Amino acid sequence: MIYLDNAATTRPSDGALVHARQYLSECYFNPSAGYHGGAEAARLLNKARAYLTECIADPAQFSLIFTSCGSEADNQAIFSTARRGNAVTTSGEHAAVFESFRELKNRGVEPRFAPVRADGSVDAEALLQMVDEKTSLVSVIHVNNETGAVNDIVSIARRVKEKNPRTVFMSDGVQAFGKIGVRLSKDIDLYCISAHKIGGLKGTGALVRRKGCAALLPRIYGGGQEGGLRSGTENVFGIACFYYAAQEKFASLEADAARLKGYRERLWEALDKELFVRISPADGSAYILTVSARGRRGEALQRMLWDAGVAVGTGSACNSKKPHSRVLQACGYPADVLDGVLRVSFCSSNTREEVLQAAKLMNEAVRRFGG
Amino acid sequence: MIYLDNAATTRPSDGALVHARQYLSECYFNPSAGYHGGAEAARLLNKARAYLTECIADPAQFSLIFTSCGSEADNQAIFSTARRGNAVTTSGEHAAVFESFRELKNRGVEPRFAPVRADGSVDAEALLQMVDEKTSLVSVIHVNNETGAVNDIVSIARRVKEKNPRTVFMSDGVQAFGKIGVRLSKDIDLYCISAHKIGGLKGTGALVRRKGCAALLPRIYGGGQEGGLRSGTENVFGIACFYYAAQEKFASLEADAARLKGYRERLWEALDKELFVRISPADGSAYILTVSARGRRGEALQRMLWDAGVAVGTGSACNSKKPHSRVLQACGYPADVLDGVLRVSFCSSNTREEVLQAAKLMNEAVRRFGG
Repeated sequence: MIYLDNAATTRPSDGALVHARQYLSECYFNPSAGYHGGAEAARLLNKARAYLTECIADPAQFSLIFTSCGSEADNQAIFSTARRGNAVTTSGEHAAVFESFRELKNRGVEPRFAPVRADGSVDAEALLQMVDEKTSLVSVIHVNNETGAVNDIVSIARRVKEKNPRTVFMSDGVQAFGKIGVRLSKDIDLYCISAHKIGGLKGTGALVRRKGCAALLPRIYGGGQEGGLRSGTENVFGIACFYYAAQEKFASLEADAARLKGYRERLWEALDKELFVRISPADGSAYILTVSARGRRGEALQRMLWDAGVAVGTGSACNSKKPHSRVLQACGYPADVLDGVLRVSFCSSNTREEVLQAAKLMNEAVRRFGG
Repeated sequence: MIYLDNAATTRPSDGALVHARQYLSECYFNPSAGYHGGAEAARLLNKARAYLTECIADPAQFSLIFTSCGSEADNQAIFSTARRGNAVTTSGEHAAVFESFRELKNRGVEPRFAPVRADGSVDAEALLQMVDEKTSLVSVIHVNNETGAVNDIVSIARRVKEKNPRTVFMSDGVQAFGKIGVRLSKDIDLYCISAHKIGGLKGTGALVRRKGCAALLPRIYGGGQEGGLRSGTENVFGIACFYYAAQEKFASLEADAARLKGYRERLWEALDKELFVRISPADGSAYILTVSARGRRGEALQRMLWDAGVAVGTGSACNSKKPHSRVLQACGYPADVLDGVLRVSFCSSNTREEVLQAAKLMNEAVRRFGG
């Protein structure tokens, strides 16, 4: 199986699993336990916390709480900081942000959705026009999970703060963390990441926050773990896998991105332009190439490709029950393009041969499908 | 190491890990993915969902959503169902329920805490007196995590519903599930369980709910997983471990409980009654024996015992930062008893020899500690 649906989830890293195994078999203790073994488990949490923060931010300025997934981090950030008045986001957000913003309406906060361009990146000027003195929160996805478009969150955050310094700025960094280089600036208050997109496990995420930013509210009350901000026994094994998987990713982040960008373009070159149109931008994440076999059904192509030995996505896996992608609709594509969307997404262990084979199979599948 | 802190967390079952491993190495797909591999991951979730429900309830009457821990399940149950008026619980609850009830006060709901008896079980008469026509929710822990006392939730739920049929009845079953036999009755609306107390992993829990009970509200909005009630990519590996660990537990639930009850009493017999007083009741869970070396510091004894090769708890690991256990304080014990609390908690693989060795080491530790 050639696995090219890594934006949906990655195969857990064997190396990370080997390193983390000790937290299943030896150091399986509750980090709150008062004896040495408990303290050892707690030490792992703090090592992981420090490392994951340092990867993208100055640890003197930022800290991190572990959550059960990127979606939980997004939800906690949003429901902690949105206040009466309005909150601004983009039409290109992941469902965890988009649906939370829709829920804000029930809580007396007006959600505002800035338009996106054809590649899925936000129209920053339009977004800034929506920010006013009543804007409590702005949320801009870092890397669009359906197209790979990168939003310049450092610049957007700076301009948001210039317009209203009291506005909290957050970003969903799930498809960026471990894949594109970023340093969180002082204008970015909250940043959400996830383990299972970089070789960690499903069930682990984190919310990175600037020290001194607006207070977070717990989503889960209880034993007071994570500084009282996220109760529940910590997912030690999942956090260990996150830590070790991130070490692997950040060790070769630039080199991986450069190589995968080459593969992405080779894939695009090898696709039959009579059959496919490109949605992903050239300057987007190296990890995602989204195309459309316009007029065909992406879901049917996806199943044909699985049978032929290659796994690809059809857009956000989280929204597979909707006929068309909400995000790509917002990008302005017509129905026949939306029908045929295939998202090819890479991980660092993918090879050039896999990518070329996938292109061949994609061309064949569309030809067999007919038009 | 003789591990007797299983109420804090258990060592993950080797058998469950072996069975679940395929969801790391082969079937690591996102359950929302439209291809065969995704459907296979989704099938595992539904098999696990059906099995875990059947273990304790009629699947025609009850269903289950997966959460990231027992605490999340407790929080979701409480914040979904408590309404203006009052909500009643006990002074013997786990922090996930207790702290959520305290938070209710900030949301216009009066929390009422029914007293507990010396063994930690709720005074059911006092609790019922607190229930009135304005009571939206009653929450009673099934097995007290600090003493092992069992509350007769079936009977209490029936009497609550007799008094106010519109009241939602929930129970935190984290220390009961897989350890004591129970069938959820039609009077029980919501029941919270956790994987890592029965040989599964930290980071997986579930909320069992009666079909037709009050609607749940999501705590996490997003991709619409778990029937829209709990978004975020499902923790497939954790859920697989939960499933396989539960199969092991339920296969020998009665036999394990009978054997461990014998060990619990042998442990108590072997402890020096000049040094220890007993807190756990004779008719409580077989899995917990809580005692106090009155006048000594439990935390210091705990560390001495770790050095001697045995791990025990000092009360709820979730509250290890407080000097005295809130729950045992509510039981009415004086400060010198509260100081010296040790919680010995078993799993089915503990042996008679381990338990007797632990008793010997506990006696020695207290004697060395002096008085």
